[in-house]
Amino acid sequence: NRELKLFSGNANPALARAIGTYLDLPISAATVSSFSDGEIRVRVEENVRGADVFLIQSCCAPVNDSIMEMLIMIDALKRSSANRITAVIPYFGYARQDRKDQPRVPISAKLVADLITTAGADRVLTMDLHASQIQGFFDIPVDNLYALPVLLDYITKRKIEDLVVVSPDAGGVERARAFAKRLQANLAIIDKRREGPNQAQVMNIIGDVQGKSALLLDDMIDTAGTIVQGAQACLDKGAREVWAGCSHGVLSGPALERLQQSGLTEVVVTDSIPLRGKDLKCPKLKLLSVAPLFGEAIRRIHEDESVSSLFV
Amino acid sequence: NRELKLFSGNANPALARAIGTYLDLPISAATVSSFSDGEIRVRVEENVRGADVFLIQSCCAPVNDSIMEMLIMIDALKRSSANRITAVIPYFGYARQDRKDQPRVPISAKLVADLITTAGADRVLTMDLHASQIQGFFDIPVDNLYALPVLLDYITKRKIEDLVVVSPDAGGVERARAFAKRLQANLAIIDKRREGPNQAQVMNIIGDVQGKSALLLDDMIDTAGTIVQGAQACLDKGAREVWAGCSHGVLSGPALERLQQSGLTEVVVTDSIPLRGKDLKCPKLKLLSVAPLFGEAIRRIHEDESVSSLFV
Ligand SMILES: Nc1ncnc2c1ncn2[C@@H]1O[C@H](COP(=O)(O)O)[C@@H](O)[C@H]1O
Ligand SMILES: Nc1ncnc2c1ncn2[C@@H]1O[C@H](COP(=O)(O)O)[C@@H](O)[C@H]1O
Repeated sequence: NRELKLFSGNANPALARAIGTYLDLPISAATVSSFSDGEIRVRVEENVRGADVFLIQSCCAPVNDSIMEMLIMIDALKRSSANRITAVIPYFGYARQDRKDQPRVPISAKLVADLITTAGADRVLTMDLHASQIQGFFDIPVDNLYALPVLLDYITKRKIEDLVVVSPDAGGVERARAFAKRLQANLAIIDKRREGPNQAQVMNIIGDVQGKSALLLDDMIDTAGTIVQGAQACLDKGAREVWAGCSHGVLSGPALERLQQSGLTEVVVTDSIPLRGKDLKCPKLKLLSVAPLFGEAIRRIHEDESVSSLFV
Repeated sequence: NRELKLFSGNANPALARAIGTYLDLPISAATVSSFSDGEIRVRVEENVRGADVFLIQSCCAPVNDSIMEMLIMIDALKRSSANRITAVIPYFGYARQDRKDQPRVPISAKLVADLITTAGADRVLTMDLHASQIQGFFDIPVDNLYALPVLLDYITKRKIEDLVVVSPDAGGVERARAFAKRLQANLAIIDKRREGPNQAQVMNIIGDVQGKSALLLDDMIDTAGTIVQGAQACLDKGAREVWAGCSHGVLSGPALERLQQSGLTEVVVTDSIPLRGKDLKCPKLKLLSVAPLFGEAIRRIHEDESVSSLFV
C-alpha cells in the first residue's frame, strides 16, 4: 500500500502530535510501556504491512531509554512487515562523542548510528547534527534539517534593533555567519583564552557589540555554561542586551538556574526536546516549533520529492 | 601480548571483583560515568593493545543503562585495539521477549544479541539463558553456563530431608528434572489451569508433596507471583516446608514483599544480579556466588580449554 504512517515513542509525543497535525494524520497506535523490571514493552497496534513508516523519537533524557525504545520499536515495525522505516530523530544524542579526542574513548555517535541501522531503519531524518560528519557514520540515507529558518523567522519578527550575531566559540562561527548573513547583521566571535596555567580565563570578543543587541547562537544549550559566560562577556563589552538561540535545548544540570540568573533577555529553543515544565523554572525560555519543518520533510520524503529546498 | 584483562561496568561490580579474586587479577581501570545530560562517558584508563579482554556487565536494573554501558565500553575497548573482547553477561536481559508470541511485537532478545555483535564483541559468556535458543541469535560463539552446580552444592549441604523438586510451571520441567535427578529426589509439577473465563485459577500439583520439603526451582524470580502461588499450592497440598531457588533474582516490583509475606522458608538466588540491600527488606533471601564458576570459565576460555565440564 505504501501508506504514510506516523509512530511515536515516549521521548517527545507533543512534537509527534504537532507533526501529525501538520500532515493531517493521526499518530498510529502502539503500546510503548515497560515491564515491572524496567524492560521496554512494545506492541504495534495496527497493521503496517507495506506502509511507509516514520517513527518519531528524539534522544531526550533519559537518553538511554529513549534510544532503546527507538531500537525496539524499529525491530517491532520491521517484523510487522513495514515497507520502509524512517527514524525521525529531531535531537540526535551522543553526538558530542563523535571523535577520539583522547586515547581509549568510544565514538558513541558512530555506535548509535550502527545500532539504528542494525535495528532495521532504512533512512534517518534529523536536525542540526552536532557535527555534519555524523551523516557519514551511516550507510543509509540521512537527511539533516536545519532549524535556522524557524529561528530566523522568529528573530526577524521580533524586530530587534542593531542586532549583532555572536558565536560563543570558534567552533560555531560558520553557523553564526550563515545566520548573520541571512539577517544582514554583523558577526562577532567570542575567543576564550587561558593565558597560562592557573590563570583565569579571559573572554575576548572579536567584533563590536558596544551598544548593540547581541544574539548568541549555538547548536545546543546543555549545562548553559558557555552561553551564560558569553552573555556576560557581551554585557561587559557594552552590549545593550543579549539574546540566546539554539536548536536543541538539552538544559541539563544547572542550566535553568544559570539562564534565569544571567543577564540574558530571552533564550530561544526549539521543541526538538520537550520543555516538560522547564519554562516554569526559567520563564526566559521561548519555545519554537519545528513540527512544520519535520512535517514538510516527511511529506516530501514520502512523495520522493527533494527536501533540499528546506535547507534555506 | 594476549594478556587476560578484566573490565567491569557499573551493573555488578561486586561480582566482577569476586571473579577477579578467583583469578587473582585486578579489575582494569576504566572511567564509566555519565555526563550532566545522562549520556554515558567511558574512558579505558590502561593500555589494552593485543589483550584478551573480558568485560563483565550484567543486564541489571536500570536495564537500558546497563546495556548501553556495555555497548559503549565494547566500542571503546575495540577502538583501543584489544585483541579479543568477550562480553561476560551473567544475567542476559530482554530474554523473555525471545519470540513473536503475539502479532507485531519485537524480538528484543535477538535485537540485544545483534547490538552486542554490532558494538564489537567477539564472544559471549552468559548463564542460564531464559531460552537456550538465544544462543542461536548470535553469529559469534556463546558459552551458556549453568548455576545448577552452585545451587546443588548449597542444597546438598543443607541436608534437607524428604526433598521433592517442584517445577512452578510446565515450561520449567526439564530444569527441575535435571536438578531432581542430581539430588536423587522426586519431581513434581504445578499445573495452573483456568477452567473457564472469569473462573479463578486452579493450582494442580502433579506428583506428591504431602509431608515433604518442596523445592521450587525456576530460572528467574521477577515479580515473584508464580513462585509465591506455587509455594501456597505446595503448602495447601500438605508440604511440610517450601524452599525456592533460582539463577537470576530479578526481584522487581512487589517481589520482596510477596516473598517475605509468603510461606516460603528460604529463597536462594545467585549474584548474577546484585542484591543492593534487598536482603534487608526480605531476610529470606540467600545469595550464592557464581564468581568461581565465571572465573573458571574465563580462565579456560583464555587458555583455549573446553568449558563443557563446567556444565555438570
Ligand atoms: N553528553 C555530553 N555532555 C558533555 N560533554 C560531552 C558529552 N558527550 C561528549 N562530551 C565531550 O564533549 C567534547 C566534544 O564537544 P565539542 O567540542 O563541542 O564537539 C568531547 O570532549 C566529549 O568528551
Ligand atoms: N521483562 C519482562 N517482564 C515480564 N514479562 C515479560 C518481560 N519480557 C517479556 N515478557 C513477556 O513474557 C512472556 C514470555 O515469558 P516466558 O513464557 O516465560 O518465556 C511473553 O509474553 C513476553 O511478552
